[in-house]
Amino acid sequence: MSAHLPPTPFLAIDLAVLDANIERVAAWADKREVLLRPHVKTHKSPEVAHRQLDAGASGITVATIGEAEVFVQNGFENVFIAYPVWLDAERRRRLVRLAERASVQVGFDSVDAAALLAGTGVVGLVEVDSGHHRSGVAPDAAGALAAAAGAGGLEVLGVFTFPGHAYRVNGARAAAAAGEGAALALAAESLRSAGVEPTVVSGGSTPSLEFVATGVGEVRPGVYVFNDAQQWELGSCTADQIALTVHATVVSHAGGRLVLDAGSKALGADRAPWASGFGRLLDVPEARIVQLSEHHAVVDLAGAEFSKGDGAGAGIAAAGVTGAGIAGAGIAKGGLPPLGSVVRVVPNHVCNAVNLADEYVIFSDGDPVDTWGVSARGMNA
Amino acid sequence: MSAHLPPTPFLAIDLAVLDANIERVAAWADKREVLLRPHVKTHKSPEVAHRQLDAGASGITVATIGEAEVFVQNGFENVFIAYPVWLDAERRRRLVRLAERASVQVGFDSVDAAALLAGTGVVGLVEVDSGHHRSGVAPDAAGALAAAAGAGGLEVLGVFTFPGHAYRVNGARAAAAAGEGAALALAAESLRSAGVEPTVVSGGSTPSLEFVATGVGEVRPGVYVFNDAQQWELGSCTADQIALTVHATVVSHAGGRLVLDAGSKALGADRAPWASGFGRLLDVPEARIVQLSEHHAVVDLAGAEFSKGDGAGAGIAAAGVTGAGIAGAGIAKGGLPPLGSVVRVVPNHVCNAVNLADEYVIFSDGDPVDTWGVSARGMNA
Repeated sequence: MSAHLPPTPFLAIDLAVLDANIERVAAWADKREVLLRPHVKTHKSPEVAHRQLDAGASGITVATIGEAEVFVQNGFENVFIAYPVWLDAERRRRLVRLAERASVQVGFDSVDAAALLAGTGVVGLVEVDSGHHRSGVAPDAAGALAAAAGAGGLEVLGVFTFPGHAYRVNGARAAAAAGEGAALALAAESLRSAGVEPTVVSGGSTPSLEFVATGVGEVRPGVYVFNDAQQWELGSCTADQIALTVHATVVSHAGGRLVLDAGSKALGADRAPWASGFGRLLDVPEARIVQLSEHHAVVDLAGAEFSKGDGAGAGIAAAGVTGAGIAGAGIAKGGLPPLGSVVRVVPNHVCNAVNLADEYVIFSDGDPVDTWGVSARGMNA
Repeated sequence: MSAHLPPTPFLAIDLAVLDANIERVAAWADKREVLLRPHVKTHKSPEVAHRQLDAGASGITVATIGEAEVFVQNGFENVFIAYPVWLDAERRRRLVRLAERASVQVGFDSVDAAALLAGTGVVGLVEVDSGHHRSGVAPDAAGALAAAAGAGGLEVLGVFTFPGHAYRVNGARAAAAAGEGAALALAAESLRSAGVEPTVVSGGSTPSLEFVATGVGEVRPGVYVFNDAQQWELGSCTADQIALTVHATVVSHAGGRLVLDAGSKALGADRAPWASGFGRLLDVPEARIVQLSEHHAVVDLAGAEFSKGDGAGAGIAAAGVTGAGIAGAGIAKGGLPPLGSVVRVVPNHVCNAVNLADEYVIFSDGDPVDTWGVSARGMNA
C-alpha cells in the first residue's frame, strides 16, 4: 500500500512510534492495574482509537457531544464525556440518542447541570478541582453534589478530575499527580459519606501519568499517543517517542534563517510560558521556531548543522520541482537545508495542531502507506 | 430570512458592523488614492470578499495556492498570493491552471523561487523585509533580485512587504508604517536602478493602515473587516467596530468565575506578549479570559457586573433547556450570568479563530438571518 503525499504542510504519523506509544502505556496500565480510558480529543481518529482499544483500553474519553457522536457512529460503545456539559434542548436530544446507542458517562459540577442530565440515559461523574482551577467542585463538596444529583434522578458513578497543573516545569508533574491523588481520595470519601459508592475514580494526564497515586482507578491521558514539543520539554517523553510531525517546506532563507510554510494555521499558536519556542524540529533538537505567523515559521538553528538523520524517514529532503517526499539530504551554504527541503516540525501542543487538518499521512519505514481522516476535527459542540 | 442557530461555540458576524468596517476602509482608501487589496485569509469567505469588491477593492490577497483556488472557483479574477511560494511539481501544475483562469501575482524572495515561477503565467512581486524580519530581502537588494528574476523569464511587477512589527504596543503602529514606507521607497528605487519599473508598491496591515506612508500605492489589510481583541488593545479599532464574536455558553461557575465552552479549539491559542488575556467579552470590557484550555475559557470579570447591553444582540442570554439564542439577561448571585447563558467572546486573533470553524452565523438587528461557509478553511497549501 502506498499513499499520495499531499502538499506541505501536512500531518504525518510514524506508525511504529504510534504503536509503541500505545503499547507502552497499555502495558504500564496493566501492570499498575489501572483502567486506561484514553482521551481521543488528541487524535480525533477512529483508526487510532481502535488501536488503543485493541491494546486494552477500557473505553474512550471525549470532550464534547459532537466528538462522542463521531466515535459512536464509528462503533465505539463506551464513551465518557469528561466535560461539564450544559444541555440546551437540542443538546439534550442528541445526548438521549447517543445514550440509546452506547454506554455514556458525562461530567457535571453543579446541581443545575445534573438536573438537566437526569432522564437522558447517561450516568454522571462529579468533576473535582484537584488544583488546576478550571471547572469542578472542591473535593469535600463532591458528596453533597452527588447526593443532590442522585435525588434529582441522575445516577452518579463516581468522581473525576484533570490535573492540568502538571503542565509546568520544575517538579510540577509529580506534585500535580500527588494533588490529584489526594483530591480524588477526599472526593471519593465525600461520596461515601453521602451514601454514594464511587465505582469510578478517574484522573490522569500525559505528564502526570507516571506519578499517578494509588487509589486512582482510571486514567485518561490523551497526548501520549503522539507526544509533542511540550511533552518533550516537560520530560514526559523522549524525541524518539514523538509519533506526529508536521511536514513543512523551506520557502525562504531570509536573514540567514529557515522560513517554513507551517505557521499557526498548521501548528497551532500554543506557547506555554515555559516553552522554549513555538515548536521544534524533530531532526535538529537544538532548533527552535522563534517567530510564528499564520503561514510562516522562522527557525533559529542555534548553530546546529543539519544531518541526514539516522532513521527511516528522518532527515531533510531536497524536494524542489521533482515532487515532495523525504529523500536524500543536501545542505546549502551556511549549513541551511536548501529551499524546497522538507523538514519535520514538532508542534508545541499536538491536540490543537491535529484539529487544524483534515487528514493524516501514515508513514511506515519512512514510506507513506495510508491516509486516515481527522474524523472529529472541529467537533467543538 | 432566518437561520437555525448551531450549538455553541459558533462564529457570529454582526452584518451591520461588518458592512460599516468594509465601507469605512474603502472610503479611506478612496480618499487617500491608494488601492485596497484586502487579505482574505482573515475571513476565507467569498461572501465577505464580494462585499469588499463591491465597495471598491481592486482585487484580493491570499496566502496560499489553496486559498487562491477557492476564490478563483468563486469567480474572483485578480488574486495576489502574498507569500514566497515554493513550487514543487504539483504546486506548479496548480499554479498554471490558476493563471489560465485569473490574473495571478505571486511573491518571491529568492532567485531560485523566481526561476520556478517563470513560465507559469503569473507575474512576480519581490518581497521586502521592512522590519518584521520574517521573509523578504533587504530593500536595497530588491533591484538585483528583480533583474535576475526577469533574466530568468519572470515578469516582475513591483515590490511588497508586510509590516507585521506594527503588532506591538507603545507607538509601534506608526513606527512600523514609517519603516514600511521607507523600505518600500528604497526597494522601488532599487528596482528602477536595475531597470525594472515598479508598477505595484504594496504594503499595509490593519494596525499600521492609518499611518501608511505616501508612496505606498496598494494596501492589503485583512483583520479590519472583523477586528478582534488584539486590534482593540492596539487601539486600531473600537469595541463597536468588532464584527465577529464567538458565541459561547456558561457551563460552570467553578471558583466563582465564568467557565465558557469556547476554548483554544474555538478561539485559537494566540496570546501576544502584550495581550491582556486569552480573549475578551464584547459586552463586558473589564472581563478577561485568564485561563484557556481546548474546550474551556475561564473568565475573570474583574468586579464588573453584567448588564443587558444596549444594542440589538448584545447582552447575555439565559438559554438553558429552552434553546440557545441571545435573549433576555439574568444575573445570578454574585453578579455572574447564570449557567446556560450565552456570551459573546472576542478572540485575540480573529484569523486563527475563523480557521477553526466551518461556518458563520450572520446576525442582522440581533437576529440570525443566514449562514455563510468558511469556504477556504484549512487551505494551508
